[in-house]
Amino acid sequence: MTPNSTSDTTPDSAPVFRYTRHAQDGQARLGRVETAHGAFDTPAFMPVGTAGTVKAMRPEDVAATGAQIVLGNTYHLMLRPGAERVARLGGLRRFMNWPGPILTDSGGFQVMSLAKLRTMTEEGVTFQSHIDGSRHQLTPERSMAIQNLLGSTITMAFDECTPYPATHDEAAQSMRLSMRWAARSRAAFEDRPGYALFGIVQGGVYEDLRQESAEALVDIGFEGYAIGGLAVGEPHEEMLRMLDLTTPMLPENRPRYLMGVGRPIDIIESVRRGVDMFDCVMPTRSGRTAQGFTWRGTVNLRNARHAEDLRPLDDACGCPCCRQYSRAYLHHLIRANEILGPMLLTAHNIQHYQDLMAGLRAAIADGRFEAFAADTLAGYALGDIPPLA
Amino acid sequence: MTPNSTSDTTPDSAPVFRYTRHAQDGQARLGRVETAHGAFDTPAFMPVGTAGTVKAMRPEDVAATGAQIVLGNTYHLMLRPGAERVARLGGLRRFMNWPGPILTDSGGFQVMSLAKLRTMTEEGVTFQSHIDGSRHQLTPERSMAIQNLLGSTITMAFDECTPYPATHDEAAQSMRLSMRWAARSRAAFEDRPGYALFGIVQGGVYEDLRQESAEALVDIGFEGYAIGGLAVGEPHEEMLRMLDLTTPMLPENRPRYLMGVGRPIDIIESVRRGVDMFDCVMPTRSGRTAQGFTWRGTVNLRNARHAEDLRPLDDACGCPCCRQYSRAYLHHLIRANEILGPMLLTAHNIQHYQDLMAGLRAAIADGRFEAFAADTLAGYALGDIPPLA
Repeated sequence: MTPNSTSDTTPDSAPVFRYTRHAQDGQARLGRVETAHGAFDTPAFMPVGTAGTVKAMRPEDVAATGAQIVLGNTYHLMLRPGAERVARLGGLRRFMNWPGPILTDSGGFQVMSLAKLRTMTEEGVTFQSHIDGSRHQLTPERSMAIQNLLGSTITMAFDECTPYPATHDEAAQSMRLSMRWAARSRAAFEDRPGYALFGIVQGGVYEDLRQESAEALVDIGFEGYAIGGLAVGEPHEEMLRMLDLTTPMLPENRPRYLMGVGRPIDIIESVRRGVDMFDCVMPTRSGRTAQGFTWRGTVNLRNARHAEDLRPLDDACGCPCCRQYSRAYLHHLIRANEILGPMLLTAHNIQHYQDLMAGLRAAIADGRFEAFAADTLAGYALGDIPPLA
Repeated sequence: MTPNSTSDTTPDSAPVFRYTRHAQDGQARLGRVETAHGAFDTPAFMPVGTAGTVKAMRPEDVAATGAQIVLGNTYHLMLRPGAERVARLGGLRRFMNWPGPILTDSGGFQVMSLAKLRTMTEEGVTFQSHIDGSRHQLTPERSMAIQNLLGSTITMAFDECTPYPATHDEAAQSMRLSMRWAARSRAAFEDRPGYALFGIVQGGVYEDLRQESAEALVDIGFEGYAIGGLAVGEPHEEMLRMLDLTTPMLPENRPRYLMGVGRPIDIIESVRRGVDMFDCVMPTRSGRTAQGFTWRGTVNLRNARHAEDLRPLDDACGCPCCRQYSRAYLHHLIRANEILGPMLLTAHNIQHYQDLMAGLRAAIADGRFEAFAADTLAGYALGDIPPLA
């Protein structure tokens, strides 16, 4: 562009929300999502920052792992510190010092898993806070308002996550309620340049219901599409079968987000099936329970075999934890309940997830996704390095 | 030095332990201590790394605050992970990734405050671990061996910290036992270039006993001298009176260390009386209990007045916590029991302590110690900034 040729272009000041696919290898997609708050590369893993912090990490250290977008939980934030308060404090991104894009869930999933005395109607859900027993209501309209107050880059439609197992009838009723809520979410969402609303496909493990749900959402029209109601207890093979069926139902020019997934192996298998975005508490939660993710599977650092092991947790990892500390030291920190243990291990685990995503992206770009996946899965299957003699 | 003029100089490879006084303002001393593991400037505050970690901080972040030496606790480390194990793992400095000098206490103080079923004889102390009930013995010889296994740059003589209050007789008996143990510590200490053994003056609040103790220690000869048995419950004024009496009894060409002190005000008053080194759990412990140290005194961030306060904890502080986060965010993290709360607040508190020490050193260098002390104490006395209207 020459300096004066700006007349026919969008001004730099008007951000867009846009998914661009840069390469495809089988069903696996390499892409980039532009937002009002910066771009992120896909396939992407979003670290979970439940209550306005990726637990035990500073945001600059989260960014240093390669993470470009983080997730916040509407349910937790609406209860504490409160959405209106976060808005008065400049929004969640400023509050938690995360300059990049954020995605917030709708609150529906955690209401069902954490809150007390829930009552669900067509209107929405009323419940008691698990923190102080105070009464609250979540509806599609209130969920949109809260996510707006939080300043969320990507807002999720309010839905009911259909439990597993569910009969066809139960799954159908639940899905259709979610589709009516999806339309109300769309209507209530305040459109702003560079922001997005994602719809969520439900339908349990029933192909016809997934098809009906996907069509209903595409009719409404969303900037991205999530696949909900998976990783809720169904067998791994059942989840993969539903992905095989569902991703082809989704528009090719929109990002696809598999909510709450998962283990590294789940991510690889889902990317293989055309998923672009992931979130999961596993790397952060495991960082607080002594479990480290490595290219040779998971390692329990509480185990006595590490007590005098001077080797790094993962010698193929370049994170500060692996470059500067031994397994013996991590083991000691965990045994002594020292905060530095979760700090180092969480940062390492997020690094492993981000390195996995970067590896997947590079492999798709080079048309060697299957080789990368096979090598990586074989490494995970090997198991940890042998103990010291 | 020209390349060939090495014949009359100490080779670079032979480190020394040496205190050099660079300036004095009243009794306040500006100096530098060279050691086998690098130098530190005095007056110095040593963050406490009880179990091989300054709690909730990475060592590189400890160093970034300006801290040049940290403290480890012999009692905790001998019990977990064990001194022999730390030695096999390359020593405490390598284990915890702290390349600079470390000081370890002798274990005596914590045996008396934490261990169970203690029995003290002329030989030493036997006790049960507070962690697992296992039986251990600490003697001057064993304390020296443990600190040697830990690889401590500065080893503390094994002593009994005389409780407060104590009669003249009790204090005399306790002090004389400590002096016999000091001689045994000296005899058992393995002398290595650049390492040091410090003796500890006891004697309770009795001038004649402090004098007797100081003379006994100087007769034995140590690389530095600590003042023990203060900050154990006696009134502030009593502590200052003992410092007024004791520091003039100590050699001018050796560093002076006031163990376990203290609040910023205590540090200022002690530097005024000629003390060079300090340690205290206060900034780290307070960082885990919502208390922040500022140039206007301490602030309890759990207080509801901070819930919507966008101002930094201390706008005169340049630490990452104060540059990037609001009081409102810190308040939220603390209320939500998020690990990031202690992480940010501990780092800030250590920064405040190090900034105080840097301010004291600069003031002594410029001959304006009294003005700096008066200004700083006046700031602390002002109390926190008023709440937002």
